[in-house]
Amino acid sequence: MAVLTLDEAEDLVFAALARAGAGPQMARSAARALVLAEAQGLGSHGLSRVAQYAAHLRNGRVDGTAVPSITAQRGGAVLVDAREGLAFAACELAVSEAVERANRFGVSFAGVTNSHHGGVLVDHLRAAAAAGMVGLGFTNSPAAMPAAGGRHPIFGTNPVAAIFPRRERDPLLIDLSLSEVARGKLMVAAKEGRAIPLGWALDKDGSPTNDPKAGLEGSMLPIGAASSPKGAMLALAVELLVTALIGANFGFEASSFFVEEGNQPRLGQAFIVIDPGALAGAGVFLDRVEVLVAEMLKDEGVRLPGARREALRSKAQAEGLTIPDALAAALRSAS
Amino acid sequence: MAVLTLDEAEDLVFAALARAGAGPQMARSAARALVLAEAQGLGSHGLSRVAQYAAHLRNGRVDGTAVPSITAQRGGAVLVDAREGLAFAACELAVSEAVERANRFGVSFAGVTNSHHGGVLVDHLRAAAAAGMVGLGFTNSPAAMPAAGGRHPIFGTNPVAAIFPRRERDPLLIDLSLSEVARGKLMVAAKEGRAIPLGWALDKDGSPTNDPKAGLEGSMLPIGAASSPKGAMLALAVELLVTALIGANFGFEASSFFVEEGNQPRLGQAFIVIDPGALAGAGVFLDRVEVLVAEMLKDEGVRLPGARREALRSKAQAEGLTIPDALAAALRSAS
Repeated sequence: MAVLTLDEAEDLVFAALARAGAGPQMARSAARALVLAEAQGLGSHGLSRVAQYAAHLRNGRVDGTAVPSITAQRGGAVLVDAREGLAFAACELAVSEAVERANRFGVSFAGVTNSHHGGVLVDHLRAAAAAGMVGLGFTNSPAAMPAAGGRHPIFGTNPVAAIFPRRERDPLLIDLSLSEVARGKLMVAAKEGRAIPLGWALDKDGSPTNDPKAGLEGSMLPIGAASSPKGAMLALAVELLVTALIGANFGFEASSFFVEEGNQPRLGQAFIVIDPGALAGAGVFLDRVEVLVAEMLKDEGVRLPGARREALRSKAQAEGLTIPDALAAALRSAS
Repeated sequence: MAVLTLDEAEDLVFAALARAGAGPQMARSAARALVLAEAQGLGSHGLSRVAQYAAHLRNGRVDGTAVPSITAQRGGAVLVDAREGLAFAACELAVSEAVERANRFGVSFAGVTNSHHGGVLVDHLRAAAAAGMVGLGFTNSPAAMPAAGGRHPIFGTNPVAAIFPRRERDPLLIDLSLSEVARGKLMVAAKEGRAIPLGWALDKDGSPTNDPKAGLEGSMLPIGAASSPKGAMLALAVELLVTALIGANFGFEASSFFVEEGNQPRLGQAFIVIDPGALAGAGVFLDRVEVLVAEMLKDEGVRLPGARREALRSKAQAEGLTIPDALAAALRSAS
């Protein structure tokens, strides 16, 4: 295993993406985001993505020369065009605009169109919490889940994120996809030859399946799909928020991230930022959050959302990232 | 069975609430909302609530003289104080303000504090769709569900709603609570002596239970709780959006709606309204919605959200409401 400081890891990722054709702003923002994900223990959204992003930069699914820009605005609403680049610089611009506009107008909605993989969604919102604001985030992804009652994948797994600042503590970080489980769980079950519970996936004909391989060729199911259409309804709402309002592609129009070839996915992200100071006031907000946290912690077994990520992040800052030698070598040689 | 026109039903509800002490604006807005719910086939949020609201008006859990007013505002953000009245007039004011502010500032957030039962959440958003805007709604309710990993009820069932207007069609209506099932399903199972699946409820000690009676004394579980904490995380996000930001009570601070005695619940509602015209444009928005709808309807078995409610509403408008004689008599004699 190799141990890298966070700065070393970021520089390696930056160099790998730059060699694949990403401009400096795009490469830097992506490198920062991937290292932050890895530091929080979110390996599936961390350094393992470098090879994928680099491949898409090289074959034109991502435009490395893209510079995000604002293409529409009114008061608290702003539309950022990622111009088929990686998502991170565009999301940074969107959240920075959202914070500034929430400060002026109380609330803001920042959409990012023509975008790519959104990474760890809640991480984009850290700038809102740092400014004392509440943030919500939404994104779609290539089609993975059917509509309620449907048989073929239409929506992405459509992550939802929320951040709530606390008084002199790490913010509460909520970040989840709307699929019952991640595809990774099917991959593990397939490798180990284990069946999966009904309610995780449909096969390619749209029938419920216990077979992880059949599920991987079919659709993932939304949360709670075994008993209700609620998860699919939430996925529909997210899909529309991040596409129709801002002109981005639906999940079913975007090629998978997990293959080299395909189209420019042109997916969407959306962020809503709200300033407590425009409503009940920052003092009331921070007091009330602590009342709820105290009530939650009365039950043993309750862990605050984000606590594990924040602990791992502190550890990685102090001790560096421990990654397989092969991954370190791949980062060094990526071209 | 008695058949009432919607106007007759509304006048009966108005009179019953007015006799219980509601002022004319409060009684009229509540009557309109309860009849609209009944017309859509949502009996649990319809005329059956009149007796409950009247009881709370009589014993002071609801202040019938309350007139909602704006207590904070900045740009797109506005805070409405329901002043311990019924929720409906306050929600009408909030959404009306939200639509007007989204028109000026692109996006708005309207909170309602010191409120009561929110009724059918998505119905408040119909005014946004009528103005061509997207609406999101959130509310909490008296404690029903534990935090992730917890054993005692903290959050309400915390409904989430979304409305998306369509071109010359009824809007898409998304409206769901974040509990795996409604309490009503436990009541039916208890009455019929049937066991319930694990994942629906915890008993009063916080242990999973198959016994509907034990579940009714304990907690409802969030969607998908049998396999993941995602539903509980969504419930936490909703709880904070409708309380800490706007100064309302948490679910665990509010007495049940289903008992006569108790405190003024002082719960919260929140509405976010977004004008597509401030982002990708109304034309792009409406076109994209139709593309998604067409893709969804390729699968037999997919029903658009809200379609059933809208069909029942049209039928009720044409044919009136058919309700049990006992309910009609109770409405006429409620005092």
